[in-house]
Amino acid sequence: MAAENDTLTEDREDDAYALDAELAPAIRLAIASGDVGRIEELFEPLHPADIADLLEQLQPGQLKELLLLAGHLIDGETLSEIDEGLREEVIAFLPSDVLAEAVRDLESDDVVDLVEDLAAPQQEALLEHLEDADRVAVQAALSFPEYSAGRLMQTEVVAAPEHWNVGQAIDFMRRREDLPEQFYHIMLVDPRHRPTGYVTLGKLMSSRRDVTLGDITEPTFRTVPATQDEGEVAYAFNQYHLISAPVVDDDGRLIGVITIDDAMIVLDEEHEEDILRLAGVGEESLSDKTFAIARRRFPWLFVNLITAILASLVIAQFEATIAAIVALAVLMPIVASMGGNAGTQTLTVAVRALATKDLTPSNALRVIRREVVAGLLNGLVFALIMGAVGIAWFGTPMLGVVIGIAMVINLVVAGLAGILVPLTLDRVGIDPALASGAFVTTVTDVVGFFAFLGLAAVLLL
Amino acid sequence: MAAENDTLTEDREDDAYALDAELAPAIRLAIASGDVGRIEELFEPLHPADIADLLEQLQPGQLKELLLLAGHLIDGETLSEIDEGLREEVIAFLPSDVLAEAVRDLESDDVVDLVEDLAAPQQEALLEHLEDADRVAVQAALSFPEYSAGRLMQTEVVAAPEHWNVGQAIDFMRRREDLPEQFYHIMLVDPRHRPTGYVTLGKLMSSRRDVTLGDITEPTFRTVPATQDEGEVAYAFNQYHLISAPVVDDDGRLIGVITIDDAMIVLDEEHEEDILRLAGVGEESLSDKTFAIARRRFPWLFVNLITAILASLVIAQFEATIAAIVALAVLMPIVASMGGNAGTQTLTVAVRALATKDLTPSNALRVIRREVVAGLLNGLVFALIMGAVGIAWFGTPMLGVVIGIAMVINLVVAGLAGILVPLTLDRVGIDPALASGAFVTTVTDVVGFFAFLGLAAVLLL
Repeated sequence: MAAENDTLTEDREDDAYALDAELAPAIRLAIASGDVGRIEELFEPLHPADIADLLEQLQPGQLKELLLLAGHLIDGETLSEIDEGLREEVIAFLPSDVLAEAVRDLESDDVVDLVEDLAAPQQEALLEHLEDADRVAVQAALSFPEYSAGRLMQTEVVAAPEHWNVGQAIDFMRRREDLPEQFYHIMLVDPRHRPTGYVTLGKLMSSRRDVTLGDITEPTFRTVPATQDEGEVAYAFNQYHLISAPVVDDDGRLIGVITIDDAMIVLDEEHEEDILRLAGVGEESLSDKTFAIARRRFPWLFVNLITAILASLVIAQFEATIAAIVALAVLMPIVASMGGNAGTQTLTVAVRALATKDLTPSNALRVIRREVVAGLLNGLVFALIMGAVGIAWFGTPMLGVVIGIAMVINLVVAGLAGILVPLTLDRVGIDPALASGAFVTTVTDVVGFFAFLGLAAVLLL
Repeated sequence: MAAENDTLTEDREDDAYALDAELAPAIRLAIASGDVGRIEELFEPLHPADIADLLEQLQPGQLKELLLLAGHLIDGETLSEIDEGLREEVIAFLPSDVLAEAVRDLESDDVVDLVEDLAAPQQEALLEHLEDADRVAVQAALSFPEYSAGRLMQTEVVAAPEHWNVGQAIDFMRRREDLPEQFYHIMLVDPRHRPTGYVTLGKLMSSRRDVTLGDITEPTFRTVPATQDEGEVAYAFNQYHLISAPVVDDDGRLIGVITIDDAMIVLDEEHEEDILRLAGVGEESLSDKTFAIARRRFPWLFVNLITAILASLVIAQFEATIAAIVALAVLMPIVASMGGNAGTQTLTVAVRALATKDLTPSNALRVIRREVVAGLLNGLVFALIMGAVGIAWFGTPMLGVVIGIAMVINLVVAGLAGILVPLTLDRVGIDPALASGAFVTTVTDVVGFFAFLGLAAVLLL
């Protein structure tokens, strides 16, 4: 098995980890000709994550046919890897005995991940296939809030009393038959089952049998409350380079463990969410249907329409000025656009700094000052450039002066709004990634048009 | 030590992992009064990552004073955690004996991470403090390209011949004195030192002494070429849920190992880079100086200026039309702005899908069709809304028709450009996160103004 995977990696060195471009067409051909043997052959060398990616590439009709032909090839791990948007559909098409076997293979945290987004009837149908003990563990996890550490943890934990020595721990593990698939630490607990530290397996291997476990614990030890937000958990793993962390209930008792591979997935998802939210896109994936896509993007476009109309109302105040000097209509989008882009730069940096907890009350003033001065510096440079362009293009020096001053004003305001808006949203508990863009561009549009057209009305008429 | 950290976590449950808000002011006070004892006391319970965050919060003058007063508190781990932008400065202020001790503490991959961005003289000065063997390891790593697996790996590896049994492996580890601080697998190698699989320490613990290592390897095994881009490595860890991966040279021989904690940091950095690039911000951090910030943001703003001027040239073609109907100047930014936002939504989804390898040649056509239809659907809805607004505001039904048609055209074009631009950039080897925005908004601005003003010229004059 290992050798096989190795060969696969070697073949792929060039395009690294992208799926072989010929794989999807080959699968399509096999589906079209109903060749189950060929599908099995194509799936055989693939990692479950790659099979899931492949399923996501198929068209809905092809996917359905594949599942009817070769549903038995979809195991629990593959199901967990499939994009949430598509998972419900895949589960609906799979025969119930295939499903039953798939979920029985998985560890409790993977089952939770698999079922938590399903509709209630589908969820119950799936849980029925589990053995009683597993079902209880999954239901216990589901009782914790969504996106909490309790949902993320696995309940399979290797724990030992802190007063044990290395020999006792090793003998204990050798006797146990149900060790988790993956574990990196032995959790030490006090008599009330509260975690007090952990020992890495490597340290255990290299220590003498008579050494007390409590004497070889790692300094990185941190406990995680079960109700803590999974984003905070991922932050802690990344910040403190944790490999695993014990999860505790309200009384501080050990009830599970979160490992770095789960934290890495959460970190990845949180980033994805931030990027999409900054662009005004909700949770979205390539396997979503067209209508769903259009509907999800609508709200942000609607907000943008409102802000654009606000900007138009500002322009409408200066209709007489524009009628007198049409060149203003030609140049005015430039000032607004530069402000919008400068504001977006600042707000993106601010949103990231808030997410990484680098922007705090103690340095906010300094950062605000910095953004305003940076806006002023770039504003001055662009004022000179645009002033020159304005004069060269329209031959009116005063028009150059007007656009130059408006540019400086708008870039300074962009810096100010770009930092103050995310700070304020964060303070009142709204995700700054979600709403900053609309507010900042409204400010830069309104100020941009007002400054440019207002100055023109005063200085040019 | 463990108990102490535990208490700290308990204290912080509410604000999770943010630094205590009173810590920065307390440090500032201690610096101002030159109270080294107090600084030591405040630093003592903190994780190096938190100390680094704290240093980043200080003003340049305060930081310098702190380093002169209490430089001895900055150990190697803290140095590695400090933001790259600030690290050079901190190193410059630290006494050379403090530096020497700091770097001697670190594993080879951390030293590489610490020195790779330093100027040559500073780099050499630091490397001088290392013992010969360590210096050779660091210099070997530095010979690999920047951002490659060779830079990321640690050279401390626990390897064993594949024909060994569990008992031999355990005895070997018990005898070895220089086991790495953190390791999770034993790498199996063939006689030519090429990795063939790995065994988790947990599996080793729970297997009988006479079991051959080759029989208990993990199916997730994958090798990484030393020259592979670190972003690809992070992708593979995330995609295949790897915990560690052996790094091989051109002949396939084992030369190091990358662990998931390093891959997680890279994944985090890659995301950060994508988010900032999408907003037209280069590598930037809160500790950068104002002038550096302004200079780094300038190029994107300059590109935006060019695209804004292009849009203005389009408007200039319709000066006569605008002079005749000033309402056009009021409404025209709405069409352009809606197109820009719709295009940004699509391009962000496309850039992410390219990064996660979900958007491929095999599904590109389907995704393009979906984006165009989604643009058409939203375009039709907004055409109705804006048509009505146009009529209600200016009392000219034909103006409503013009803005409606222009809206549909621009949202369809936005969907098309939003997907084709990133796909094309990716195909020709340019990072789509970096350059898509400028191209897409140019297209939507130009098409938006041209469609609206052109239709107006034809239908309203």
